[in-house]
Amino acid sequence: MPKLMKHMNSISRLQAAYRTARMGGVLGGCQHSFVLAICRAPGRSQEELARDLCLNKSTVARTLAALETDGYLLRTPNPADKRELLVYPTEKMQNILPEVRAVTREWNERLCADIPEEELAVFFSVLTRMTDRARELADEWEVKQ
Amino acid sequence: MPKLMKHMNSISRLQAAYRTARMGGVLGGCQHSFVLAICRAPGRSQEELARDLCLNKSTVARTLAALETDGYLLRTPNPADKRELLVYPTEKMQNILPEVRAVTREWNERLCADIPEEELAVFFSVLTRMTDRARELADEWEVKQ
Repeated sequence: MPKLMKHMNSISRLQAAYRTARMGGVLGGCQHSFVLAICRAPGRSQEELARDLCLNKSTVARTLAALETDGYLLRTPNPADKRELLVYPTEKMQNILPEVRAVTREWNERLCADIPEEELAVFFSVLTRMTDRARELADEWEVKQ
Repeated sequence: MPKLMKHMNSISRLQAAYRTARMGGVLGGCQHSFVLAICRAPGRSQEELARDLCLNKSTVARTLAALETDGYLLRTPNPADKRELLVYPTEKMQNILPEVRAVTREWNERLCADIPEEELAVFFSVLTRMTDRARELADEWEVKQ
């Protein structure tokens, strides 16, 4: 399957550009994914967010610091383990959440608009299996580092 | 199709982590994509690379600067338009190209290993259409910015 990942990376990067443009420049790169992940389960540690978002810890720490500076979130020490920071959305993040969700839904719907239902079903089934496999492959190597 | 982009973004990010780990920490994030794109067509402008890689110009400029500092590429003014920089791989980049290609091929093969041929065919056909559509959607909004 030639260029499999070129297609997948392109769609992922074009979605990031679309979300930023569609929201008038509010949030960029992977920051919209952070809004969705943080609001989905407030109070998670940076490590849990890194695992959910499939990003390395330094990217997560850097992006969280930028979002905190912009007033979108708070990081507070975990009472059970003071070395661990837990991440909570502020009102500012909760206020933009509906727009991030709407723009994400709009992108998904428009991306799939002309594709027959039965082909989409196969596509999504394969995609889900690929995600599980990708996680296994990445974990296998992370352990060796 | 719930979580369509979460799956796609996850696979894309896990591939980046896999490539970096698999190559012993050489190159990170989207830098492997840059190696493949630059070596595929040496002498392209930063704008052409940005379009090919589906990344914005500032991300491309920043990543090219880092790769240039590390000795992987040269940027020279276009003789036909001195304001434009053309990007060429150095010997150092050409030397790592076979490994980047091999690790990319390995990832693709392992990701697809257990998926039946006929499902993969449908998957790839849908994915190709989605990439074209994603480009249209992003272009539509870039124009409005």
